[in-house]
Amino acid sequence: MTGIPFKTWMEHIQDRTEKALEHLLPAHDLAPQRLHQAMRYAVLGGGKRVRPLLAHAAGDLSGAAPEQLDASACAVELIHAYSLVHDDLPCMDDDVLRRGKPTCHVQYDEATALLVGDALQSLAFHVLCDAPADGASLVQGVRLLAQASGSRGMAGGQAMDLAGVGQQLSLEELEFMHIHKTGALIRAAVLLGAGTALPDPELASLDHYAKRCGLLFQVVDDILDVEASTATLGKTAGKDAADNKPTYVSLLGLSRAKELAAELHRECLDALSGFGPRGERLVQLTDFIVARRF
Amino acid sequence: MTGIPFKTWMEHIQDRTEKALEHLLPAHDLAPQRLHQAMRYAVLGGGKRVRPLLAHAAGDLSGAAPEQLDASACAVELIHAYSLVHDDLPCMDDDVLRRGKPTCHVQYDEATALLVGDALQSLAFHVLCDAPADGASLVQGVRLLAQASGSRGMAGGQAMDLAGVGQQLSLEELEFMHIHKTGALIRAAVLLGAGTALPDPELASLDHYAKRCGLLFQVVDDILDVEASTATLGKTAGKDAADNKPTYVSLLGLSRAKELAAELHRECLDALSGFGPRGERLVQLTDFIVARRF
Repeated sequence: MTGIPFKTWMEHIQDRTEKALEHLLPAHDLAPQRLHQAMRYAVLGGGKRVRPLLAHAAGDLSGAAPEQLDASACAVELIHAYSLVHDDLPCMDDDVLRRGKPTCHVQYDEATALLVGDALQSLAFHVLCDAPADGASLVQGVRLLAQASGSRGMAGGQAMDLAGVGQQLSLEELEFMHIHKTGALIRAAVLLGAGTALPDPELASLDHYAKRCGLLFQVVDDILDVEASTATLGKTAGKDAADNKPTYVSLLGLSRAKELAAELHRECLDALSGFGPRGERLVQLTDFIVARRF
Repeated sequence: MTGIPFKTWMEHIQDRTEKALEHLLPAHDLAPQRLHQAMRYAVLGGGKRVRPLLAHAAGDLSGAAPEQLDASACAVELIHAYSLVHDDLPCMDDDVLRRGKPTCHVQYDEATALLVGDALQSLAFHVLCDAPADGASLVQGVRLLAQASGSRGMAGGQAMDLAGVGQQLSLEELEFMHIHKTGALIRAAVLLGAGTALPDPELASLDHYAKRCGLLFQVVDDILDVEASTATLGKTAGKDAADNKPTYVSLLGLSRAKELAAELHRECLDALSGFGPRGERLVQLTDFIVARRF
């Protein structure tokens, strides 16, 4: 997969991830049909698939073939998809638009959306067990994904996010929240993609990259929430400000938030520099994350 | 653990499960504190711990020591606890009382309860990875638990349950729903406890036992919902009838539901008969499930 242009590579990975997800999600006519239809609605046909892209790009470091990476890529995307469905619920962010479509609970109903998220989380762990790797590596993967998803990872970050509504957070507190809410799963995508074969110093560099990349992603997200339109984002723009949520933009102002993004971008590239050509896809993907407009 | 009276054994397992859960749940003063406090509230200090008891009793078949079974026992209990928290939410069963205390969303809030369930599910898979077993067995365990929890297991059964409200289900449809909603996780508890060392014919008998035991548990639950008081149950009695939910009692009447329980009880004991003294705890536990008054 090296040598082909980034855009072609990205579309290829997005396409194969879509096909893999389509294959592993229960069929729409399998009982309970409504739940399975809603699960497919929530996962398929949308999203940038940033986490699967990260998993595949990180797989380049170990020379893994795309077919060895699909299970990990899909597992992190399923966790991400479940978190969107639950975050959009009325008792959380109460949002009606996601990936350019009505949110799951609007299209179906709240109870179904709740179960969709629950079942997608179970499916993520199931899928991960099917990755072509030895038992010990798989267990390490399950542990990593469970930590990244749980109360000291994504779910915990979401709880901190809720607690922060209407609060004046410090920059450290905001970073702490995002390291959990967005960062943990992005880190898991990178580390699952890279696998367990890298030597320790390389793993340390990659871990540093993964953590900074997670923050970078969030800072860019906060900037886009202010600068982009609802049509481009596919979700309600300006929602954070309307919800009185602390963001990098509300804390730093737009201009300094952009400086922070540039700084994190540099840190990410520095962390990847030791990998040489093996890290090329991750470099390109990081550039894409910064330059994205949606 | 053989030779001691059933009641002593049961209390011992309940006690060690409580301690193990207390140990593995994040501390109440660890950030995000409110989430961790709510997770502890939802899991600790209540419940019959039927699934952990089943895991430990099934462990007797392979001669496993209790300390080898704690991780599996806790993992299934965490999945069960998460499902109760989500089932009690207003968009699902909308219940205010559980294990004799206000439900999680009443004591905290809906968003926290949603995240509690999400994080408990992640924790269950994390805990399972810490069981003292080889990688391949652990992966098999994760796969089993994920299947039992997902859209073709517990979450799927809950979706069928919702779809059944106000409907006239056939006995087959009711059984199909309960095989998923309650049965799948009870089966997982038994199989995880037994481990991977049993010969195939014994595994087949045990699997048959586990499936019938899941149904038995549910039939008894339906009978108790009619016959027991809220104070004894620790949850709102008569809720199924009030919610217009199909149950074994509403479909068969109380007397035939009791006959069905007796029949399933016999089937369970038949399935265990080949195990001899190794199956004694499972026999006693099955008797307890039938005779329980809460």
